[in-house]
Formats: sequence, structure tokens, C-alpha cells
Amino acid sequence: MAINVQAAVFHGPGRPLTIETLQLDPPQSGEVMVRIVATGLCHTDLHIMEGHQPQAVPAVLGHESAGVIVAVGPDVTGLDIGDHVVPFMLPECAVCPNCLSGRTNICLKVKERTSPASSRLHWQGRPVHTFAGMGTFADHMVITADRVAKVSKAARFDGACYASCGGATGIGTVRHMGVDADSLVVVFGLGGIGLNMVQSARQLGAKTIIGIDTNDAKEAVARRMGATHFINPARQDSVPAAIMAITGMGATHSFECVGSPSVMRQAVDATNPFYGRCTLVGVAAAGAELSLPIQGLSMGKTVGGLLMGGLKPRSQLPGLVQEYAEGRLNFDALISHRLPLDLINEGFALMKRGEVLRAVILFDGTIRNSAGPQ
Amino acid sequence: MAINVQAAVFHGPGRPLTIETLQLDPPQSGEVMVRIVATGLCHTDLHIMEGHQPQAVPAVLGHESAGVIVAVGPDVTGLDIGDHVVPFMLPECAVCPNCLSGRTNICLKVKERTSPASSRLHWQGRPVHTFAGMGTFADHMVITADRVAKVSKAARFDGACYASCGGATGIGTVRHMGVDADSLVVVFGLGGIGLNMVQSARQLGAKTIIGIDTNDAKEAVARRMGATHFINPARQDSVPAAIMAITGMGATHSFECVGSPSVMRQAVDATNPFYGRCTLVGVAAAGAELSLPIQGLSMGKTVGGLLMGGLKPRSQLPGLVQEYAEGRLNFDALISHRLPLDLINEGFALMKRGEVLRAVILFDGTIRNSAGPQ
Repeated sequence: MAINVQAAVFHGPGRPLTIETLQLDPPQSGEVMVRIVATGLCHTDLHIMEGHQPQAVPAVLGHESAGVIVAVGPDVTGLDIGDHVVPFMLPECAVCPNCLSGRTNICLKVKERTSPASSRLHWQGRPVHTFAGMGTFADHMVITADRVAKVSKAARFDGACYASCGGATGIGTVRHMGVDADSLVVVFGLGGIGLNMVQSARQLGAKTIIGIDTNDAKEAVARRMGATHFINPARQDSVPAAIMAITGMGATHSFECVGSPSVMRQAVDATNPFYGRCTLVGVAAAGAELSLPIQGLSMGKTVGGLLMGGLKPRSQLPGLVQEYAEGRLNFDALISHRLPLDLINEGFALMKRGEVLRAVILFDGTIRNSAGPQ
Repeated sequence: MAINVQAAVFHGPGRPLTIETLQLDPPQSGEVMVRIVATGLCHTDLHIMEGHQPQAVPAVLGHESAGVIVAVGPDVTGLDIGDHVVPFMLPECAVCPNCLSGRTNICLKVKERTSPASSRLHWQGRPVHTFAGMGTFADHMVITADRVAKVSKAARFDGACYASCGGATGIGTVRHMGVDADSLVVVFGLGGIGLNMVQSARQLGAKTIIGIDTNDAKEAVARRMGATHFINPARQDSVPAAIMAITGMGATHSFECVGSPSVMRQAVDATNPFYGRCTLVGVAAAGAELSLPIQGLSMGKTVGGLLMGGLKPRSQLPGLVQEYAEGRLNFDALISHRLPLDLINEGFALMKRGEVLRAVILFDGTIRNSAGPQ
């Protein structure tokens, strides 16, 4: 039998989310129902709300969450009622060639899992869409078990939720690319992903970590997370030249978290010509192209992309959350605002004005509005 | 005291090389004199002769060679008169950060070593330039010891010479990029480098090796070297689609050995979106740019370049030549013509008409003109 859930509903670009009571079907074969305790507000949600990415409506957005299993459908193994879990954007079926490879994780079931048909939500008798087959801006969700990681009960839900998107992408990317103590690291764009890259590079022992952002207010938090240098492009004739001045022969690893082709070009130009690796994480406009000087690539540098940190969700997210629970990864310092669901539009307004690091919605009703680490 | 050498001299674009007697100074500190036994004709030489790459004249071109040490200057260790050696385009000083890294070899002394000032040749009292501080289209050369690999005396000079450019670049690149038995390999352009990539991929156990060339005559030799498939782009609507049809999700490794931005784009598009690696080896026109779809890079593929196979010459060329001497690498099948120095222009004419695999000049006077493997 369907249950009632409270959700923030998206009706179309430019319109505020509205808090509504929707109906959620029970889990079917291979699915679980999760009571969501915390869900983060991500720039990807804002892109959709501003109309930069198509989304059928009415829809429940949101994809970064943590919660508790409250119902388990048939044919699910390894997950029980009461388990603390972190749902993930991508599945890990654990049997396709990509899941079995050591190189990446884009599970080949991703299209099926993120299709509109996977939504179990209804409203006034009509189906409600979700973003990427998730929809975490609701107090409950139904999702396939292959997109759910069982995590430590010692972890706070707000930090665990952050692990699944900004954390996974930032930290997963830096680890996947082999940053180590000898690395000279440059991060373009100090949002949630970029700041997690900074903390990950520091954790891996990199001694030079250059953070780049047009917002000077990011310098302090970047340095707290481990940045050794900060560059504001507005005060530089040439960002690559400024990076060369610090690194000598250029960055061994540069990471682009802005989504701008011109910044991507800088990120390529700033890498060591012999073995520099530039990784593109920022989401560019659909159809955008990146033009690169062929001669600049000729000696050994590489440029490439990586989705969601190349992370295998079911097998690797629990470890990430464990590191957070043990204090080895600091997500708390990156969560600047905790809000109840009915202030979700205010949360996005803060994000748009650049006044948040990460804002997290808490569903437990005990928190009305708290800013700053708890 | 200077000695007389026979050399093919380049006087400017479009003009034939002329055979002249030049004067070669004895080796200075850190230098050795090599009697060259074999030197290969490379497309890079042809590019210069056709004016596509600037070169001060008069000059002795040529950079792929093997020979015997005949004189050793002061301050040279590890090389003696009578040693068989293979000179290399790039130095390996063995002390700079790049030489010491496990990742690449572009020795940081490369600019100094390839400067015009390094030439020891004179003609009628005037200095004679060399290509890249080498000049192997002469029966003797003087070169710094850090660009000379001591190799097995069991190896034939013609194959050993081929190891130093087409062999090193083709084989070094495929090894450097980590091709293995699970790899799906695509090679665009079946010249000397591409064919060596094919043989290297087979040696590493790759079970799918797709060779691509507009010349159908290349199919037979590519299959002999290990290609499992051959594609002529002239008979395809879409080369990437043809590659997808063979590989399923795309190549794990693609190699571009043509130097064309449009072929490079195909080589990127043909790789596996999750972990494909496209390596650019072909030499594009100066200033050429490669435009790539950012979304196509977003899931995990990478594109990059690699110079001379990333090979460390003094430490790694001897092993390559040893593999040739033991029959584990086949260069003989790729040498289609052996010529004396005075037929060098005919050799380039054959190359221009696409009628050679590799042509090698032999200085020992015993071979007038032989075609085919010996």
C-alpha cells in the first residue's frame, strides 16, 4: 500500500519548489524504501531549476541523501530494515563488465536505473517524475538495491549524505587519478567538489595544493582543507603562468570543477607537459567543445573526464562514510547550512548568491535553521 | 683533427640531397664519434625536405641510426671504441627529474642537445647544421654520450637502427600506455610506427587489434604483424561506428599515427567512454588544434600525447635491440628497402609514393639496392 510522503515538488524552470503530500508505492522486486534523514542541495539541482537541463514535471529533484531502510521488497539481499544507507546516483550491479573492472564505475545498468519509469511517486492520481530515478527532496524514497550503500551507524546522516555526491566526486576523482605525496595539484573552482579535492589531496600527502576561485571568501576554507596556495584569476594576467611560477614545470594533476571550456583550457595548459593529467569534472553546456593545442599534448600530458569520481557505490561508499565517521574526512566543515524542508527555496537562493558551502535539508524536524558546523 | 665524411646534404625545400665530402671535428668533452653503419629514412626527414618544418641549411638530416664507436672524447664513461651503439633523438642525462621519474622521458637537457651549436660538421670552411643535433645521413657523426645507447653486438645494424625511431615510438607508446591481454586496440595509420604498435600489441597479448589505413596494400603486412581487423576509411560511412561494431563499447586504447586533427577526433570518438585512452603520436601542422566534445570526455576517457614512446634511451633502448636480436621483435619484415647513400633521393621518392615500409641506408658499400627482407 502506498504511503504519504512530504516532498518539495518542481513544476518547471523559474518556479519555486512547493511542499506537497505525495503517494509513494511500496518497494517492488529488487527495491527498498528509504526514510531519508538528510539530503544535500547540489548545483545540479539548481541547474535544473533554472532550466539549463531538461526535466519532465512535476518532479521531485535531489540526489544526495542518507537515511534508514524502512521496507525491503522481494529479491533483495544484504539490506534489512533499520540499516543506515546512502543512495547513489549510479547503480553498481556488481556483475556487468564495468562493475567488474578495476578501472571505473559506470555500471551498464545506469540508463535503466535513471529512467522515468523507475519512479514510484504519485500525486493526485498522476505519476510524479524524479531526477535520475531518485528524488531525495522527499522524506521517503523507493530505489533499487543496486544503488544503495549500507553504511556505518556511527556516521552522522548530514555528512554521510554529503559523501554520496560532492564527497564522492571530489575525493573519488583525486584518488582515482593517483595523486600522491609527489603531486603538484591544482583545483579550479572551490565549490563542494573542489574543496573535497583539496582535502583529499592533502590526505594523500600532496605538498603543493593550489586552489583557484574568483571568490576571495573561498581562500580561508580552502586553506583550512589543505590548500597551500590560493589564486584569484581576476588578479592574474595568466592563470597558467601563475601556476608555473609555483610548480616549476606545471601541475602533475589539475582538476576543473567549473564547467567552462576556457577554464578547462587553462587547466590543460597549467599541467606538466611531460606527465601532467588534467581531469574535467565541471559540467559544461550541452554540445560544448574544448579546443586543445595538439603540440601541447605531444610530449605526454593527458586530458580526460571522470563521472562521480569513478566510484563504485556499493563497494566504495561505505569506506568513505567510515572515514568521515572516524574523523579522517571532514565533511562537517563544508556544510554551512542545515535547513528544514520547508526552507528549501531559501537554501537554493543562498546557493545562487554564493553564500553557502553545502546546505543540507534535515527531515527529522528538530532543526529549524542552523548555520555553521555543528 | 677533423676527418672527412660522406654525407647527403640538404640545401633547402624541394631540392634533392647532394652527396658531399664534409669535415667532422673530433669528439669534445662528453662526446663520442660514431661510424654509422645503417640509417633509416623517416617521414620526419621528408617533412623537412618538403618545407613543412623549418631547418637551417646547409644541413645533414637523419636521426635514426646504428653504428660503432670509433673515438671517445674526454669525460665519457661507459662507452668504448668498438661498442655497437644506437644514437637517440632525445638525451638521457640520468640525473634530471624527468630521467629519474618512472613516468616519462623527456630529459630536461633536450633543448641544449638539439641546438644548432652541437654540430661538429663543416663544409668548405662553413658550419653545417644537423637535424636535432644528429645528422645520421653521413657515414660518421659526433654526438654527446647521453644520447647513445650501447647495444648487443648480436643485433643487425639495420634493425637496430629502426629500433631507435619507428621501433621505439611504436613499441614504447603501446607499452607505456599499459596495453595488455584485455585490451581492444585500434591503430590509425599503418606506417612504420603504426605497424610497430600492431606488433607490440600482439606481443602484449591483445586479442583485438584493428589497423586502419587508406592504403589497402597495408592490410597484408598489418595482419602479418598481428592485426586481427583492417579498416579502410574510404569504405566506411563512420570509422568510429565500424570500430564500435567490432569492439562493443569502443577501443580501450586508440593510437593516432597520422597527424590529422580529423583522424584524431575519430580516434577519440572510437574509444570506450568509460576508460578508453587515445594517444596522439602523429605530428600535426604547427599551431593545429583538436576540438573535442566535453560531454564525450565526461565519463572517464582520456586523450593525450606521447613523444618517442616515452622511452628512456640509454636505459631502455638496449633491451629493445636485444628483443630484436633474439627474434622477439620483428623489424626485418618492416624494412622493405636497403639502399646505398647515393640512392637516398630515390629512397625518399619511393616513400613519397607510398611504396616503402621502411627504407634503410647501409654505408658498408656491399649493398647496392635490395628490396625485401634479407
